[in-house]
Amino acid sequence: MTSPLAIELPDVQAERDDRRVALDEVGIAGLSLPLLVAGPGGSVDQTVADAEAVVSLKAEERGTHMSRFVEVLLSDDRPLSPGDVLGRAQALRDKLRAESARLVLRFPFFVERTAPVTGARAPLRVDGWIDVTTRLENRTVNVGASVPVTSLCPCSREISDYGAHSQRGRVEVTVDCPPWTRGEQGVWPHELVAVAEQAASAPVFPLLKRADERHVTMQAFDQPAFVEDIAREVVLGLQDDPRCHAWSVSVTNFESIHGHQAVARARGRRP
Amino acid sequence: MTSPLAIELPDVQAERDDRRVALDEVGIAGLSLPLLVAGPGGSVDQTVADAEAVVSLKAEERGTHMSRFVEVLLSDDRPLSPGDVLGRAQALRDKLRAESARLVLRFPFFVERTAPVTGARAPLRVDGWIDVTTRLENRTVNVGASVPVTSLCPCSREISDYGAHSQRGRVEVTVDCPPWTRGEQGVWPHELVAVAEQAASAPVFPLLKRADERHVTMQAFDQPAFVEDIAREVVLGLQDDPRCHAWSVSVTNFESIHGHQAVARARGRRP
Amino acid sequence: MTSPLAIELPDVQAERDDRRVALDEVGIAGLSLPLLVAGPGGSVDQTVADAEAVVSLKAEERGTHMSRFVEVLLSDDRPLSPGDVLGRAQALRDKLRAESARLVLRFPFFVERTAPVTGARAPLRVDGWIDVTTRLENRTVNVGASVPVTSLCPCSREISDYGAHSQRGRVEVTVDCPPWTRGEQGVWPHELVAVAEQAASAPVFPLLKRADERHVTMQAFDQPAFVEDIAREVVLGLQDDPRCHAWSVSVTNFESIHGHQAVARARGRRP
Amino acid sequence: MTSPLAIELPDVQAERDDRRVALDEVGIAGLSLPLLVAGPGGSVDQTVADAEAVVSLKAEERGTHMSRFVEVLLSDDRPLSPGDVLGRAQALRDKLRAESARLVLRFPFFVERTAPVTGARAPLRVDGWIDVTTRLENRTVNVGASVPVTSLCPCSREISDYGAHSQRGRVEVTVDCPPWTRGEQGVWPHELVAVAEQAASAPVFPLLKRADERHVTMQAFDQPAFVEDIAREVVLGLQDDPRCHAWSVSVTNFESIHGHQAVARARGRRP
Repeated sequence: MTSPLAIELPDVQAERDDRRVALDEVGIAGLSLPLLVAGPGGSVDQTVADAEAVVSLKAEERGTHMSRFVEVLLSDDRPLSPGDVLGRAQALRDKLRAESARLVLRFPFFVERTAPVTGARAPLRVDGWIDVTTRLENRTVNVGASVPVTSLCPCSREISDYGAHSQRGRVEVTVDCPPWTRGEQGVWPHELVAVAEQAASAPVFPLLKRADERHVTMQAFDQPAFVEDIAREVVLGLQDDPRCHAWSVSVTNFESIHGHQAVARARGRRP
Repeated sequence: MTSPLAIELPDVQAERDDRRVALDEVGIAGLSLPLLVAGPGGSVDQTVADAEAVVSLKAEERGTHMSRFVEVLLSDDRPLSPGDVLGRAQALRDKLRAESARLVLRFPFFVERTAPVTGARAPLRVDGWIDVTTRLENRTVNVGASVPVTSLCPCSREISDYGAHSQRGRVEVTVDCPPWTRGEQGVWPHELVAVAEQAASAPVFPLLKRADERHVTMQAFDQPAFVEDIAREVVLGLQDDPRCHAWSVSVTNFESIHGHQAVARARGRRP
Repeated sequence: MTSPLAIELPDVQAERDDRRVALDEVGIAGLSLPLLVAGPGGSVDQTVADAEAVVSLKAEERGTHMSRFVEVLLSDDRPLSPGDVLGRAQALRDKLRAESARLVLRFPFFVERTAPVTGARAPLRVDGWIDVTTRLENRTVNVGASVPVTSLCPCSREISDYGAHSQRGRVEVTVDCPPWTRGEQGVWPHELVAVAEQAASAPVFPLLKRADERHVTMQAFDQPAFVEDIAREVVLGLQDDPRCHAWSVSVTNFESIHGHQAVARARGRRP
Repeated sequence: MTSPLAIELPDVQAERDDRRVALDEVGIAGLSLPLLVAGPGGSVDQTVADAEAVVSLKAEERGTHMSRFVEVLLSDDRPLSPGDVLGRAQALRDKLRAESARLVLRFPFFVERTAPVTGARAPLRVDGWIDVTTRLENRTVNVGASVPVTSLCPCSREISDYGAHSQRGRVEVTVDCPPWTRGEQGVWPHELVAVAEQAASAPVFPLLKRADERHVTMQAFDQPAFVEDIAREVVLGLQDDPRCHAWSVSVTNFESIHGHQAVARARGRRP
């Protein structure tokens, strides 16, 4: 009996395509995998990532080979820095003989949070991402984080005899930074947490005792910030860092007085 | 040539099943359809609904006939009251010769909202549902709504020298009510909006000018409410209404000082 | 007693900002509203839209006035064509004295679907969007749709002795088209449905009787298509239409043999 | 100067409530935390969990103390078995002097998957949960998993000359099982994966080479299964296991020929 492995199976993907349409990105998305993410100071996050891996496809090639994307993503289980993710994208590009390859990893990570008065400690979840592209001689390493914050409305505070509405917000920052190669140090997603939080009315905490709640209530009242203010302070926090070549900032306030959101967004680039 | 319609196709679903396992609910979910929902005072909401339709399946029947669920859901396009939805569930049960049938329609609807000072008007989105079951002689008509509200923390207000954290909340109420038959009037999803809002620190609005924002900021500060308070006030608002045979209340506060939610839930039944 | 409307309230948003950071987009997102969408041949879709409205903010302006976005979005309730949405974006830009304004409306709409053999009719939900930007003399009108389809894997069919795996897919197409002004006719979201479906192995249907199911099963088997094939066929369907100045195509297959998705994407522009 | 910790802060939650409304569940939801989950054979999953923790609240108590829920959830970082989660719920109940307490942990975990022909290995993501309640003398330990599978329609196969539509499905199983105490061994979420997969047309895999794809294509064709069949086979797989006191099974097929889903659900209990 013939082994199934010995059967010569046609390679339909490898057929020639005559439609003259090149594709920018073909591959896989929504692949969940356990991941070790390298962090600052030799730290490692054990997390679960959602991965997307795509390559460009020439006009004359009918399809790509999807299993190879999975193989590259799972090729080893060492902690990955953003630079390592770039290396893996290059491996993917080589393996599939593509002009460009892109890898996007999205994953939760946790930062130790200390309550401001009692010192109670608890991990705060932040959503991070590493989004790298390699195309010919160009390499792009984007690193980002989505950070929950508190915002308190300056207008509400100013026009009211007492009180001011506050709400949960989300600060999303993506930074185009060096690829951790040739001695150039890039940005860790973890570093963006402080940039986001300094811009808001107050950080959020998983664990606050009453004395802490008193503290953050007044802290937010003392530092009111429009969604526009938060976006600008984040930009100010990024634009003097030489590792930030370009950035994209998006702030969303889940307004407590509305059913919809307030948003502010800025893109920029160091001259 | 034989017409495809003339081909005698086997009815695999109608096969006998010998596994001796009856199923509680078989059918379809996630069917999106345009819907007219009848409301109080002869009003009609033109909306888009997400429909689920299921029946019980006897142990000896292999499968149900999925296309019939769609046919029953689309059988006419008149505005549906909760009582009409019950009628349609009964039609489904009859058509499929099942012991029980259940229909669930989820849909957004809008309530006209008037800003408290300027009188500016705008529609506020509320998510409603009608969830009916018919089983033998029993009929259950559940009607519900998910209403966005503002909550302001009483503890934060009390312990702080100034300010108090507020946030967006969601009040979800489901009421088991009469089936709009034999002269018994049931509850409209629209009626649950006021029940939810009176329980919170303030309602939310799509459109507020500055004078309005000042008003709702102080209104919330004057009526602080824990998530537990809101749940209780909703229960109080329901339990004296003879149309409410039973209820389920779930309140969620998207805490502005945390990344997680505070919740309070109560189920009850009129004696 | 002074009327609240008579109180002189400070306009905090109108303060001067000295941080020298202009913002690309400030405004509101996630506003749900009932909407009439104009369609081809004078048709009108009564639907529920999710709206985003943003403007650019100059470096020296502290904030925008969020209530005005809501006012512009709700300014009348006539059926809106993509050209009308552009008009509303221009009104927003003027009202807020901004350099640019962008309006995005996302909404479900339904196309009548006729089963291929029995002729049974039912509405199929499609998600559409109109995304317009006005900046100085430039106006961009993007129109799009996300269409569910069936895909059947050519490789699986070719290498197997029998059968072939199929799955639900999604074709998302956005087209940059003329603004329905000066006699130039643009593209309706509804027109993209056929473009998406001719590219797939088969369309999907809300309602299929057995004779229809037989038909679409064999139709898909007869027209196998990789995610790459679908993307290319969509491009071919767009590139000869003079109304399509540019396009973005994204196809996702929810692979039945994997837990992740296969994707193919292309962007293009008419020369 | 007085330390903030020395300030006597009022305990508003501890106030007496006179509304005579007891609440079933008050606490926190959506708390994300890193978690070690114990598995069969001494294995440990390093994962990220979404936690809900609630207690009952007596009518005369105004509020609960939300920070204590977080403290109990984070009280140590040892690997948790379902029995350990029950122990933590009991600690929560004691700490808050409540009649009942419930803890729900939802988390992804991965099972090593070996491709059927080439033996290529890759981790498959499964979503698991542990949902425990302690009330007076009663303790309930529910353990569950949501498993992606392939289903191939028996009707489509039978009525068509060739081919048969297949699609991705989801099998959700929750089992009420012993609490891992007094020598009674409960069920691990991991064990439910095989129960779900044997019931479907084929398992799904993250990594399949062509020879594997051929294999699973034909395997699914050889084992067609309606959503009803899958639900029944899962029940059969559970009902003879003495550790399964009761169960809830929900199967969803993301039909490739429709835009909606087919569902089948069963609840049962060992006599």
